[in-house]
Amino acid sequence: MGETIYAALLGLGTVGTGVYKVLKSQEAEMSKKIGSQIKIKKILVRNLEKAAAKVDDPGILTNDWKEILEDDEIRIVIELMGGMEPAKTYILEALHAGKHVATANKDLVAAEGRELFDTAQEKNCDFLFEAAVAGGIPIIRPLKQCLAGNHMTEVMGIVNGTTNFILTKMTQEGMEFSDALALATKLGYAEADPTADIEGLDAGRKVAILASVAFNSRVTFDDVHIEGITKITATDIRYAREMGCDIKLLGVARNTEQGVEAYVNPMLIPSTHPLASVNDSYNAVFVHGDAVEDAMFFGRGAGELPTASAVVGDIFDIARNLQAGASGRISCTCYKELPIKKMEDTENCYFLRLQAEDRYGVLAEMAGIFAKDKVSISQLVQKSANQGCAEIVIITALAREGDIQNAIRELEKCEAIREISSVLRVYDNAR
Amino acid sequence: MGETIYAALLGLGTVGTGVYKVLKSQEAEMSKKIGSQIKIKKILVRNLEKAAAKVDDPGILTNDWKEILEDDEIRIVIELMGGMEPAKTYILEALHAGKHVATANKDLVAAEGRELFDTAQEKNCDFLFEAAVAGGIPIIRPLKQCLAGNHMTEVMGIVNGTTNFILTKMTQEGMEFSDALALATKLGYAEADPTADIEGLDAGRKVAILASVAFNSRVTFDDVHIEGITKITATDIRYAREMGCDIKLLGVARNTEQGVEAYVNPMLIPSTHPLASVNDSYNAVFVHGDAVEDAMFFGRGAGELPTASAVVGDIFDIARNLQAGASGRISCTCYKELPIKKMEDTENCYFLRLQAEDRYGVLAEMAGIFAKDKVSISQLVQKSANQGCAEIVIITALAREGDIQNAIRELEKCEAIREISSVLRVYDNAR
Repeated sequence: MGETIYAALLGLGTVGTGVYKVLKSQEAEMSKKIGSQIKIKKILVRNLEKAAAKVDDPGILTNDWKEILEDDEIRIVIELMGGMEPAKTYILEALHAGKHVATANKDLVAAEGRELFDTAQEKNCDFLFEAAVAGGIPIIRPLKQCLAGNHMTEVMGIVNGTTNFILTKMTQEGMEFSDALALATKLGYAEADPTADIEGLDAGRKVAILASVAFNSRVTFDDVHIEGITKITATDIRYAREMGCDIKLLGVARNTEQGVEAYVNPMLIPSTHPLASVNDSYNAVFVHGDAVEDAMFFGRGAGELPTASAVVGDIFDIARNLQAGASGRISCTCYKELPIKKMEDTENCYFLRLQAEDRYGVLAEMAGIFAKDKVSISQLVQKSANQGCAEIVIITALAREGDIQNAIRELEKCEAIREISSVLRVYDNAR
Repeated sequence: MGETIYAALLGLGTVGTGVYKVLKSQEAEMSKKIGSQIKIKKILVRNLEKAAAKVDDPGILTNDWKEILEDDEIRIVIELMGGMEPAKTYILEALHAGKHVATANKDLVAAEGRELFDTAQEKNCDFLFEAAVAGGIPIIRPLKQCLAGNHMTEVMGIVNGTTNFILTKMTQEGMEFSDALALATKLGYAEADPTADIEGLDAGRKVAILASVAFNSRVTFDDVHIEGITKITATDIRYAREMGCDIKLLGVARNTEQGVEAYVNPMLIPSTHPLASVNDSYNAVFVHGDAVEDAMFFGRGAGELPTASAVVGDIFDIARNLQAGASGRISCTCYKELPIKKMEDTENCYFLRLQAEDRYGVLAEMAGIFAKDKVSISQLVQKSANQGCAEIVIITALAREGDIQNAIRELEKCEAIREISSVLRVYDNAR
């Protein structure tokens, strides 16, 4: 029933345990499905004792990387430790030893992808990372293969489940950010230190990877402008809904004539857009290409088994390549060097919420500032007024980020403006 | 810049023209993307004159299949004629000649898949068909590769754009079926003879293919129970919405312990389900696997360029396999022989709309019939009563199709029941 192919797992945390379980559950039909039988020969863990309870045969556990690296029978290394080091060193050493690698490590792929892909290519090895973006949702392979006939102009989506859960609770139950975060922590959706999620860093890494694959040009984590959701209030969400929009933490990457723009930020999105109804911890990635037009991929963006589903898909692909003698069949597809557009040159509509003195002339003064900075106002609503202070919500027409920032600086200097409470971009799918 | 690989197109209708255009638009970067350059050497058409206007070089047009079959330089045949013959003969002859095949032909794959796959496997040739299901939406490759680590238990969705457009118009504008069909015809969404769409045949073929790929066991068109949307009325849709549901033409396939069930039918689906908001001519496929849980794929299910996007993805994959010497790398994945469950043994909740005499005792009589046939009623609403006739809507609990059919036969014999206006299944995602 086909060759046995030995593999090693690095890490036995949530995803590692999931991969171990999924491979077990596929054991009986694996050789019929992919033509070979994958066996986990070693698992690298820090604490042998703690890990022993998680596997059938604790004899496969080791805390010595060399035992795996130097075992020529092990042809696939599955890196699920996360973080930069020692993951990067281990992956590079594995590739140099001619081993194929599957990883779920978005931090590493987003920051150091080039060196890893170059090494894999040089050694004719597979280096696959479907699980690094949007967990269980197939997106990397669809972009590299199914949609390869397209010039993709946009890839955007909800790629962080923790923040989507928080925003969903704020939207559906009117909770404030801190309460929703506390609930997410209690339910296990947020980690003890939620910074990477709520500040948008995790989403930023995924956007860098998605943009690189979609536009065939390297975009790294540093190229992505990032804003988190910590300043969003229930009031912002309520006003957005009154205007027919929801607020989502969106990762957006566009391939424009002036270069690639990539950012993560809480954005207003029309409630009729398919992404607006992606709630709780679900993720979804929306793409636009010149042939396929719009397509969306929806599912679980994290979790033990969904993420393992993506990793095992990669492992099976590596095994199929080994069987066919076609390792490295599809490697790095970043054959362009597109410039990165400066954030100040991006264009969006903007939602501004501000507190101003409730007297004649204030609106005229504000309108003057916007006009001077070439920003058109497309909607202006006074939401409430009390104690001489009016809350005003403004939606601008499409404007340059740099111009908006200038206008905001001017508004801040303006005596009649007591506070600029929120500045949010608006996702405009009409353009 | 890589080898030139010659291909031939069979057919230059909507999709054929799209493929021709998409390959042109990829010309400049193709070799960097996939390592080789694909050139269309011949296009088989019926009418040389008519086709000449559609291509840059009419010299590549031919109406002689032998010219393509016997040209050893042509390594890829792209079948876009549709229908059973001569498409089947040409594909088999191409495979026997060692040529690789990409097709968008759902009729053929759904009915005669086994012979085509067996021949491809025997000749070590690629036979790819991503475009045969849901047009531009990547679904075959994600199922065969990305999600290969799953035991899929369900695959279902909206896989016909024409009927989805019609039902959307009936839902959003209260149109009756005949008016919505007339509009679809006027706008080019429905063909002159719309039978294959509105009777569910087109969707049935796609469900057969999806089930085969998802469950690793051959399901043919004949195995799929099919009901179209011609009997759906605006009233059914209005009542469904009052109950928190939309009506969609759903293709459903489930892998159960008693065998595979596969059917296409208009169904009530909760308005909160992601599929309920898939409107107009969009398609979406929903899958459930033991590892990935729920995932959905959304996009354009038809059209010149979206369908061409899928075909070109396949062509690029064939070219990559040729480059890597890995043709036939992933062939037929139907390695099981699961039984097909009889429709009468499937279980669903049901929506019944009927006209009954408006007098004491009728409900008791009906309830007696349902009870005798082991069908529980979970909702019963009298919608209106006039001229001695009451309109009654019933939603049943989960019931066996055979039992429902028995109950309906009994109800038909019942003097107090003047008409059974509608019997629709209800998609229940809670089970």
